[in-house]
Amino acid sequence: MTTTPIAPYTYSASFAAFDRAARVIPAGVPGHLGPSEGCFIPNGAFPRFSSRAEGSRFWDVDGNEYIDYMCGYGPNVLGYRDRDVDAAAAAQARVEDVVTLPSTVMVDLAELLVETVASADWAFFAKNGGDTTTLAVMTARAHTRRKKVVFVEGYYHGVAPWTQKLDYPGVLEEDVANNLDVPWNDLIALEAMFERHAGEIAAFISTPYFHGNFLDNVLPAPGYWQGVRDLCDRHGVVLIMDDVRAGWRLDLAGSDHHYGIKADLICFCKAIGNGYNLSALCGREQFKESVASLTYTGSYWMSAVPFAASIATITKLKEIDAPALFRAQGRKVTDGLVAAAAGHGLTLVASGEPALFYLRLADDDSLLLHQAWVAECVQRGLWITSHHNHFLNASLTDADIDRTLEVADEAFRLVAARHG
Amino acid sequence: MTTTPIAPYTYSASFAAFDRAARVIPAGVPGHLGPSEGCFIPNGAFPRFSSRAEGSRFWDVDGNEYIDYMCGYGPNVLGYRDRDVDAAAAAQARVEDVVTLPSTVMVDLAELLVETVASADWAFFAKNGGDTTTLAVMTARAHTRRKKVVFVEGYYHGVAPWTQKLDYPGVLEEDVANNLDVPWNDLIALEAMFERHAGEIAAFISTPYFHGNFLDNVLPAPGYWQGVRDLCDRHGVVLIMDDVRAGWRLDLAGSDHHYGIKADLICFCKAIGNGYNLSALCGREQFKESVASLTYTGSYWMSAVPFAASIATITKLKEIDAPALFRAQGRKVTDGLVAAAAGHGLTLVASGEPALFYLRLADDDSLLLHQAWVAECVQRGLWITSHHNHFLNASLTDADIDRTLEVADEAFRLVAARHG
Repeated sequence: MTTTPIAPYTYSASFAAFDRAARVIPAGVPGHLGPSEGCFIPNGAFPRFSSRAEGSRFWDVDGNEYIDYMCGYGPNVLGYRDRDVDAAAAAQARVEDVVTLPSTVMVDLAELLVETVASADWAFFAKNGGDTTTLAVMTARAHTRRKKVVFVEGYYHGVAPWTQKLDYPGVLEEDVANNLDVPWNDLIALEAMFERHAGEIAAFISTPYFHGNFLDNVLPAPGYWQGVRDLCDRHGVVLIMDDVRAGWRLDLAGSDHHYGIKADLICFCKAIGNGYNLSALCGREQFKESVASLTYTGSYWMSAVPFAASIATITKLKEIDAPALFRAQGRKVTDGLVAAAAGHGLTLVASGEPALFYLRLADDDSLLLHQAWVAECVQRGLWITSHHNHFLNASLTDADIDRTLEVADEAFRLVAARHG
Repeated sequence: MTTTPIAPYTYSASFAAFDRAARVIPAGVPGHLGPSEGCFIPNGAFPRFSSRAEGSRFWDVDGNEYIDYMCGYGPNVLGYRDRDVDAAAAAQARVEDVVTLPSTVMVDLAELLVETVASADWAFFAKNGGDTTTLAVMTARAHTRRKKVVFVEGYYHGVAPWTQKLDYPGVLEEDVANNLDVPWNDLIALEAMFERHAGEIAAFISTPYFHGNFLDNVLPAPGYWQGVRDLCDRHGVVLIMDDVRAGWRLDLAGSDHHYGIKADLICFCKAIGNGYNLSALCGREQFKESVASLTYTGSYWMSAVPFAASIATITKLKEIDAPALFRAQGRKVTDGLVAAAAGHGLTLVASGEPALFYLRLADDDSLLLHQAWVAECVQRGLWITSHHNHFLNASLTDADIDRTLEVADEAFRLVAARHG
């Protein structure tokens, strides 16, 4: 391809805003949206604040425009400011939101989830994905009267102390005393763990496939989930699917259904409301009373506006068969990126499901070449990130994908020239 | 007073909706809004679902109207669907909400909190009140490298396992292994606890006054908070104020400021955004780096719409001097209720701050007389609850208070006649 070089963006307004932020907010921008954890892009190569968003794009505070493959780290599934979702939310807001009694829109959404998600006989609503993983583990403990939880190495299930590691600040040995780890896709290790701790394990918690950070993502091996389901049944272990990240992008009936099983409990957040603040734990009938027995509530958990937004989101995802769209568009993006890299003598590895593709430039073990390529993309309006899976949204057009590949090509050219 | 008897409400649509809910939601309506925990009103005497809300009132799905003294359990501080707050939120929603990078409205709100709250040198945003109490305790542990936390007996700091009790379903001994309790208003017990566990206590966490359920609420004794502050300083214990419930109603500079001290960390939620889903931990400069060191983030924590709503809420609370209004209106309500009870030979005890008054009919130790009175009120359009503090909102009018006292009087008449 021969194109005019694309001039890189500058970020003076972003950096000025970040200076203000750093004075009054710990770390300036905390968590996975901050400069330290979220991006691993060379400092100075990416902006810090957005000013508006629409469809597949957002604009930073310097007015630079991005085709966005992070989608707010997942919530943007239909496109930013989707008209149908926003209209449903606004209509609900004109009536009521957080009130002393809930709105029946909560029941409408629970019924829609039960109708849509294969493993859902009921739904419980909260705010964070982590509210639902914690509720799932507490439910499993109440149900089994056992303590231990088996995780897959490299897991992320939120930020509650029990989901963290002992060497993280503020975490106690008591917080993680009942955590056991097994490798992904390893039924032999899982069975050995279940046998070693027979009668002690309350739950196995896992994402539907391995989409951890800093590592190529890995799909379930043939028969893996069926094997997990069988082992859980034989050992009386509650199978918790953390579908916070992949949910609503692989399969509207749940990612457990997508891979051929029924989880006992399934956690949703992010894409469930196209950005409106909502999470949900769904599960099978035999766990309903255990959930009801717990003390578990929050100030905004009956907030009606996100329920209305979620109904509109799920309805539209069904109408457009969003998972099929994401598979097709995701393959176009990753096939195009891999080919563009090859055109410059580089090897780009795309892993995971196309709807949530993960990228790695394989020509340099240090990660620096990959980060440099991402930086060149971001500075030219293609928002990807270094060592985290990406997310598709339904408003991404073929023209967006063409532009994506143009920018990526230019960025490959630049780093290939430097890589030598 | 001689008035025509007020006919009690009926709830057929509410009960029908609850039947639907019970099929697809554990407990039907979970948590503190549900029939079991939230109300302690005789079954059948209160509705289950709201259909709309405005100002000081909401309507149930049968069309019955209520003057609401629960305010969504706190969030409604200016009045339901406040025009200024909703306009600010809608304007933000037309630009962006949950995006891959945060909006600078996050910084604007952090600056407003630092300017407004006496003990705030910074702000960290999340969704639940419990997100902030957990972050506060993790920060104290990271900062002090100590484990234990001292609570006040009868505490409520959210639903995370570490805030619960060992005999609650789903809670492990490890979850609560580092919890110590002292009685409210007891500096001697607190000092003895600090000495018994010298060098082991990371934090003391407390609400600004005792507003626990099922007990008359108790204000701090003179000198209590100054004594707590001194003890924490002498023992290197982090003082965490849980202002989730009382915050923004007693003092816009923080309830710690209201009682004459500066907390180290202060937790806000509920009234901070008039219902828009937001919480915040604020604190003093020396804890900022410890907060920044933690792994702590969530899918919607940079959601811009609640930030815009919170700025509008706090700005308006300042303009109208809401705490002074709440004190004056709260006294009118409680003085009027106590007098109305006396007119029927009953003794109503009103306790706590007027903005969050707690009620107890003292003529019957069984609680049943009190619950019966609450039921008669609810069935006539006065929404109070049995064993939880109430909340005022700024849209409550003198006419609302007159009607409140009319309904309460009728309800006192009915229960006094039955009590004999």
